[in-house]
Amino acid sequence: MASYFKAWRRVEFSETDMAGIVHFSNFFRYMETVEHAFYRSLGFSVILSGFQRPIGLPRVHASFDYKRPLRFEDSFLIELTVLEKKEKSLAYRIKISRCDPEERPVEECAMGRLVVVCVERQQDGGLISVPIPEEIANAIEVFQGE
Amino acid sequence: MASYFKAWRRVEFSETDMAGIVHFSNFFRYMETVEHAFYRSLGFSVILSGFQRPIGLPRVHASFDYKRPLRFEDSFLIELTVLEKKEKSLAYRIKISRCDPEERPVEECAMGRLVVVCVERQQDGGLISVPIPEEIANAIEVFQGE
Amino acid sequence: MASYFKAWRRVEFSETDMAGIVHFSNFFRYMETVEHAFYRSLGFSVILSGFQRPIGLPRVHASFDYKRPLRFEDSFLIELTVLEKKEKSLAYRIKISRCDPEERPVEECAMGRLVVVCVERQQDGGLISVPIPEEIANAIEVFQGE
Amino acid sequence: MASYFKAWRRVEFSETDMAGIVHFSNFFRYMETVEHAFYRSLGFSVILSGFQRPIGLPRVHASFDYKRPLRFEDSFLIELTVLEKKEKSLAYRIKISRCDPEERPVEECAMGRLVVVCVERQQDGGLISVPIPEEIANAIEVFQGE
Repeated sequence: MASYFKAWRRVEFSETDMAGIVHFSNFFRYMETVEHAFYRSLGFSVILSGFQRPIGLPRVHASFDYKRPLRFEDSFLIELTVLEKKEKSLAYRIKISRCDPEERPVEECAMGRLVVVCVERQQDGGLISVPIPEEIANAIEVFQGE
Repeated sequence: MASYFKAWRRVEFSETDMAGIVHFSNFFRYMETVEHAFYRSLGFSVILSGFQRPIGLPRVHASFDYKRPLRFEDSFLIELTVLEKKEKSLAYRIKISRCDPEERPVEECAMGRLVVVCVERQQDGGLISVPIPEEIANAIEVFQGE
Repeated sequence: MASYFKAWRRVEFSETDMAGIVHFSNFFRYMETVEHAFYRSLGFSVILSGFQRPIGLPRVHASFDYKRPLRFEDSFLIELTVLEKKEKSLAYRIKISRCDPEERPVEECAMGRLVVVCVERQQDGGLISVPIPEEIANAIEVFQGE
Repeated sequence: MASYFKAWRRVEFSETDMAGIVHFSNFFRYMETVEHAFYRSLGFSVILSGFQRPIGLPRVHASFDYKRPLRFEDSFLIELTVLEKKEKSLAYRIKISRCDPEERPVEECAMGRLVVVCVERQQDGGLISVPIPEEIANAIEVFQGE
């Protein structure tokens, strides 16, 4: 049962903008990076296969509060915490912190929230929300503490 | 005095992902597209020059609630509404709707919120929040109605 | 029969990098923008449907020679010229020019080359190159002149 | 003296397109990733500071020949080889290969070429090409062999 995951990255040049900082939209790519790495750490991919019908986890909400900028070649920590687990959806808190050269977080840059819902693709291409498959639901639990 | 602005776009192939829909992070690029076009419509650029010190409008919050996907070659409408005008910050609602071939909105795809704060770059590179320059503040007003 | 197409765009903030200019990788997105608009102008989409099997036009070569930078809010012209039409492939020249406020090109920024090949997706997911469907091949011709 | 460098990455979801493969423009981001990591390995950043005037290494040419696609969660190897070193420019070959789970390359996906030129920013904002600073030029040599 996992309720927390973290990943490190370094800012790439193509992620900066003319203000000299990471473009705010790229924080949402970082958000997804840690989410998908979290699923991989549990032994399954965000591309869910092996179920009766094709299942996916599209976003219904994504947000960030920005506190400090990230700059080119900064290394940073992305932390995912499971906030809610419902029958058909999951909510995560995503925290992004700039790190020192030893990869220890030194200042919080952004705090975000991501909500995904489990859907099944119908034969006509439509999507309907369905319960999260048991083996996935069983691997994830809400973070206790703080 | 302006409190509302809209722009149209068409989904490009590079904005889709392997799920066959626009990647959720790209909605934040669309959000910025309409914001900057709004400033241009008022006669100034988001790159504020001509003031005593370099001034910018970085984001402190950005979010979207996703309702329906956008797909390749869909044309869509991006609407900006001014929700709040404070001494040093502005809050916008951003609505994205898929359009029919006549560019009329037919379904709401996402509803977002963007908050920007006015900052001045100090000589040491630091940023401090400052009042929005009068000529900009005077051109923008909170949307009345609904 | 078409051998030339052009489209206009304006540089968006998210396309710049910390050097204050359009990131070189984005020129390849502009390249694709004009290519797909060219297909639309001929009445078909790059997502080819209505044929016996799913057909696509993946790239086998893409290049740019960069001459001058593009900057935020520059408007620019993207020109596509058909250089070669073979049984299974097409080669295009792509020229990007910065424009004046009347959208007339004033200086060449980059000159590129794009080669696409027609492929059919097999039932096992593999791709094999196939002749370009006749109705497409008939609509495109090599540029004469210059 | 270095003439070769390599880096590994894994394909992220946001880098795929609706064809289910990495969008061709993202290969140019990978190209830059290995180039910048190469400079870091030599002890300097692509953002060159500490010289008399601001110096940069903009691209004058970038190209790829695409052989096989990369897909979501593929891990891949990016190899940089120094092809040419002139007074004011450097040319690199960039090879991208899909890897097996042990991170050994198993098939070549794309072969590219990148040419950068050393420029100095003038006080009026203009750029002029200048000799590569000696300490950088001395750290890089043309690959011998093959």
